[in-house]
Amino acid sequence: MNTDQKALQLLFQRPLEPVFTTRDGGKTVFDLSDTFYTDRYRNNTQEVSDRFGQDVEVKIPLQEPAKIPNLSFAKSLGRKKQFSLFNTSHRDIATELIKIFLAAPNVQQLASIAAYCKDRVNPVMFQYCYAVCIAHRPDTRDVDIPNVSQVFPANFVEPSVLQDARQEASVIGKAGNRMVLEIPVNYTASDREEEHRLAYFREDIGVNSHHWHWHLVYPASGTMEIVNKDRRGELFYYMHHQIIARYNVERYCNNLKRVAPLNNVRDPVPEGYFPKILSSVLNRTYPARISNQQLRDVDRPDGKVELSALEQWRDRVLAAIDRGFVENTSGQRIPLDEVRGIDILGNMIEASPQLSVNSQFYGNLHNEGHNVISFSHDPDNRHLEEFGVMGDVTTAMRDPIFYRWHSFIDGIFNKHKALLAPYNAAQLQFQGVKVDYIEAKLGVANARPNTLLTYWQKSTANLAAGLDFGPAQDENIGASFTHLQNAPFTFTFNVTNSSGGPLKGMCRVFIAPKSDEHNHALTLEDQRLLAVELDKFTVDLMPGVNTIRRQSTESSLTIPFERTFRAVGASYQPTAADELARFRFCGCGWPQHMLLPKGKPEGMVFDLFVMISDYAQDAVQQPNNLPNDACSTAFSFCGLKDKLYPDKRTMGYPFDRRLPNNTLSALVDSFSNMTKTDLTIKFSDRVVQ
Amino acid sequence: MNTDQKALQLLFQRPLEPVFTTRDGGKTVFDLSDTFYTDRYRNNTQEVSDRFGQDVEVKIPLQEPAKIPNLSFAKSLGRKKQFSLFNTSHRDIATELIKIFLAAPNVQQLASIAAYCKDRVNPVMFQYCYAVCIAHRPDTRDVDIPNVSQVFPANFVEPSVLQDARQEASVIGKAGNRMVLEIPVNYTASDREEEHRLAYFREDIGVNSHHWHWHLVYPASGTMEIVNKDRRGELFYYMHHQIIARYNVERYCNNLKRVAPLNNVRDPVPEGYFPKILSSVLNRTYPARISNQQLRDVDRPDGKVELSALEQWRDRVLAAIDRGFVENTSGQRIPLDEVRGIDILGNMIEASPQLSVNSQFYGNLHNEGHNVISFSHDPDNRHLEEFGVMGDVTTAMRDPIFYRWHSFIDGIFNKHKALLAPYNAAQLQFQGVKVDYIEAKLGVANARPNTLLTYWQKSTANLAAGLDFGPAQDENIGASFTHLQNAPFTFTFNVTNSSGGPLKGMCRVFIAPKSDEHNHALTLEDQRLLAVELDKFTVDLMPGVNTIRRQSTESSLTIPFERTFRAVGASYQPTAADELARFRFCGCGWPQHMLLPKGKPEGMVFDLFVMISDYAQDAVQQPNNLPNDACSTAFSFCGLKDKLYPDKRTMGYPFDRRLPNNTLSALVDSFSNMTKTDLTIKFSDRVVQ
Repeated sequence: MNTDQKALQLLFQRPLEPVFTTRDGGKTVFDLSDTFYTDRYRNNTQEVSDRFGQDVEVKIPLQEPAKIPNLSFAKSLGRKKQFSLFNTSHRDIATELIKIFLAAPNVQQLASIAAYCKDRVNPVMFQYCYAVCIAHRPDTRDVDIPNVSQVFPANFVEPSVLQDARQEASVIGKAGNRMVLEIPVNYTASDREEEHRLAYFREDIGVNSHHWHWHLVYPASGTMEIVNKDRRGELFYYMHHQIIARYNVERYCNNLKRVAPLNNVRDPVPEGYFPKILSSVLNRTYPARISNQQLRDVDRPDGKVELSALEQWRDRVLAAIDRGFVENTSGQRIPLDEVRGIDILGNMIEASPQLSVNSQFYGNLHNEGHNVISFSHDPDNRHLEEFGVMGDVTTAMRDPIFYRWHSFIDGIFNKHKALLAPYNAAQLQFQGVKVDYIEAKLGVANARPNTLLTYWQKSTANLAAGLDFGPAQDENIGASFTHLQNAPFTFTFNVTNSSGGPLKGMCRVFIAPKSDEHNHALTLEDQRLLAVELDKFTVDLMPGVNTIRRQSTESSLTIPFERTFRAVGASYQPTAADELARFRFCGCGWPQHMLLPKGKPEGMVFDLFVMISDYAQDAVQQPNNLPNDACSTAFSFCGLKDKLYPDKRTMGYPFDRRLPNNTLSALVDSFSNMTKTDLTIKFSDRVVQ
Repeated sequence: MNTDQKALQLLFQRPLEPVFTTRDGGKTVFDLSDTFYTDRYRNNTQEVSDRFGQDVEVKIPLQEPAKIPNLSFAKSLGRKKQFSLFNTSHRDIATELIKIFLAAPNVQQLASIAAYCKDRVNPVMFQYCYAVCIAHRPDTRDVDIPNVSQVFPANFVEPSVLQDARQEASVIGKAGNRMVLEIPVNYTASDREEEHRLAYFREDIGVNSHHWHWHLVYPASGTMEIVNKDRRGELFYYMHHQIIARYNVERYCNNLKRVAPLNNVRDPVPEGYFPKILSSVLNRTYPARISNQQLRDVDRPDGKVELSALEQWRDRVLAAIDRGFVENTSGQRIPLDEVRGIDILGNMIEASPQLSVNSQFYGNLHNEGHNVISFSHDPDNRHLEEFGVMGDVTTAMRDPIFYRWHSFIDGIFNKHKALLAPYNAAQLQFQGVKVDYIEAKLGVANARPNTLLTYWQKSTANLAAGLDFGPAQDENIGASFTHLQNAPFTFTFNVTNSSGGPLKGMCRVFIAPKSDEHNHALTLEDQRLLAVELDKFTVDLMPGVNTIRRQSTESSLTIPFERTFRAVGASYQPTAADELARFRFCGCGWPQHMLLPKGKPEGMVFDLFVMISDYAQDAVQQPNNLPNDACSTAFSFCGLKDKLYPDKRTMGYPFDRRLPNNTLSALVDSFSNMTKTDLTIKFSDRVVQ
């Protein structure tokens, strides 16, 4: 790593500490002119630079900023305020800051300008804007964006553990003698709360950091070069649709019925949620929502929204879907067709102000729903409370209501999809290709085919980089947490190519539950909405029988475990595999340890479905010749950096639209390029270190 | 201070840090055998004793505990749990620990046993039990009990200030260069919330620490030697009655009507409250109560109470009052007479299980009301939430509902008092004594008589002793906060003694509002319930005209400002006045800066009432010859240490019972030993440093 990269990476550490303190476990400090010091420290520059400069190994000089940025636009979002991507005024401020970062003429000036801004704007917004900039500038391709759970660990862990971490670091000098702290498994609710059965999913560190990273890669507003990405509206639909499918499947695994869409914002919300996590900037717990809270109109200084507005926007969107077209601001009708319809709806419903066909008319449904929910405890700001977890992409997925709200949003998208003609044979078949056999098998001796295993695993996160004002010399403050894990497995597909020549196909792997929580069999129409994508990859099919093997860890959904959890900072020793993944898009992706649903102790049977589609119809001609992205393994949810989405089919194909058969068996019997088998997922209720 | 005293005082510092860390700003450490180390640190004893012993000035050796206490009784209250004096099982555990501390044969063993227990029981309970022990042992009379706001500052200050304090202490090495942190004035609510007008009263550091200290001096349960104090039931009534009177007067000053008693626990509670303060042990915000919360039956692992139980207890207590007697467990009738009735009711309603005449029948009304309210956000523990501020004597007075609940409780007491015969002339008069003139006047040149001033003042608290795991060398981390203050003033009374010989009287000074929030004149019956005691003291009256002067700072209600706010720890330089006050009872008392209600900017007119009663009827024969308590100035609310309450009249006399006249004017016209005058309190909305 060169010095410029290093300088840029250091700005991700200790987000609340002034820029002149040491970083990298006390090894490194910036060498700064007085320009960088805020008024608070202007009279102490000598003292603090002596103090923090004395024991370091490296001093990294920063250039003077060529031009001191005028940050008055950011004043209304103070340093002790929560920052929300769902809040229009916050997003506008962030856009300005991102512009400043993007305008820096080179990486030296970027480091300099960012260092200048860091202590002068809201620290959470700074980290967001800075990460967006690093993710999008051509000259910062090699700068690593750390996982947000390392930068703001308070958003992810039970808060008394932060206290324990301070104790451990201040009492025990030698890091080697320190105890690994224990983040409790069940701390947000008890068994009396049915919804708590899903806490391991909702509160998973990887799940929540994926959600944050996705919104970092696909911001809803900002400059057009950042916002206007290939099929972003469709990806908004699909990524969230898959999360809902996964959540519903996970509920079946826990003997719960599917989540009830939040179709009526006038009903009280039975699901209370007490997140308990601390906001770093407020040093306060994220506000709770009690059981049976009524949602109400929000009327606050930095945003107003009425429930009736949500209802109007919903009704206009649904009317557009029923009519089959939307109207742009000039009154032109744009059809909601098979190909572009879902993308138009995604950008319109989320909404992206830049990409919505008519944001004045179709409004800002999804974002403002987050706001209404997140302020239900204090809708008129009388209690000077900030938003609850639903107001923050870093934390929203912790709350049961996230899934109710997104089931409602997903229902709108699904309505559009259901109005399209069912896929016909021409769209589904791949002549000359027959999938003879599929199997998923654990990588251990004597493993039984199509029986997969899940269990609890304990992993360790390093809180050091985010533990502001903790001991400066600390580069390792370990906290152990428990998460779901699946035993690695291998898919094997036997495929016969009888076309006479070589063919290229796209192999699409899904699982779908066979029955609901009462053991009633699901229809194909139910199954397709619950189908969980496991993988998607191209295959070369030689004439005759082909045997294809694919590791579960290669999934196009997931990022490797190490990406989700590894530490920030100099003490980190990259592995070869990790080095390979050392690119900015890597943080986006579903966590590998959540690839499979939990299943049941007695085993839960799924349909494992595989389809090989004709790559000639799937292929996308990429417009530029950028190098391959090392993280393209997670393209299903995250796309490819600076490229088109690498699958021409609409996302979710073939389950995004109605199908010509009534059962999954009938479907696979009708098309030789598909097959299915029973797959059992067994959950073992034990903890593996 | 000798070493034993020092050792005992150090145990009040840094309540969450292990006992082997440095105290007194890094100057002092205990010299400890391995016995004291908990399992966590047993393998690191050498490392940590080297680490914390290296730069200290003083090492204080502790004896081995003669007997290692068995602490298994305390296990159910873990170290990461909130401790509540309203919770019966918590109180039972605390009683056991207090017994252990009281049983220590000498102060050396007390220090040793307490040091052993400190890291092995709940740290908040430890501080409570330890303070109770220090307050009650004969051999610890000279050990200072620090103000609870110094031990657990998190319970008193806006939490981001704690973060700022960590920043300031970790960034700026030299304490002299540090900024004084600013605790915001309005952080719990905005002007949209009417109740927020009283936040300066409810959230005052001195008001809340008084409440904590009162319950420390008058525990409701424990050993009989601690619980069974002279007229404690009556004092429970009177201290809380005066708080309600003061609060109602303060509401008039802010153009609000009197507080609505919480007479119906089935009604939703309009007053929401979001305390924002952090619990030290949980590192979480005290849970909030949203607007219009419904109270519900509490069913939790460590306590159950039904709303119907509260109603039954209330009904039984009211029935006893209407019948004029209570029944003890043997069925004996004990009359609720003029003298003992209120004391019986106080102990029965609070309730003190040891002192209640029949706790099975009359229940635990006041305490369980606190519990029901404090768990309204999570009554069945489904969300694993701890109690809100109403569950903790340190924090309860912050919440608007405290005053609604205590108005309800006060109403029960007042009902009993209203059923007693009105005071007659013999009970009110003091023959031969005439109060000719009264006046209250500021101590400045050209002050206008009977016009007093209030304003805001900024004072500084030192957070260092309670900032666990902050930098060890820090003895001063200042935080500035704003509170109400009154300009010092002097009462002058001209009294004629025409009896021919010297007389002794008790001078009783009250103020009462003249009209309500709509400027409607109050009746004497209204006024007597709103009368606020300002002072009470004995006077020697020589024959002829006597001029008596009394400083506002001498009030029998208050403790001096310095007692409320001064710092814990070695860096503290006592003033002579403070040295005088260096006794354990001193922390109990109404804060001097809250002696007067706020008044109004345009001036608010009160009746200033003075009565001189016949000391022959007031005097109490003290049974023992203990030295005078240096803090006896605050006896009105707190009594005298190890002595009888020094006024034989029922507390609140003459306003605790009905009076023989319809107006205050008629009353003072009827009795020469009383008089009144108009007193104007002007509030100046400016901040004095």
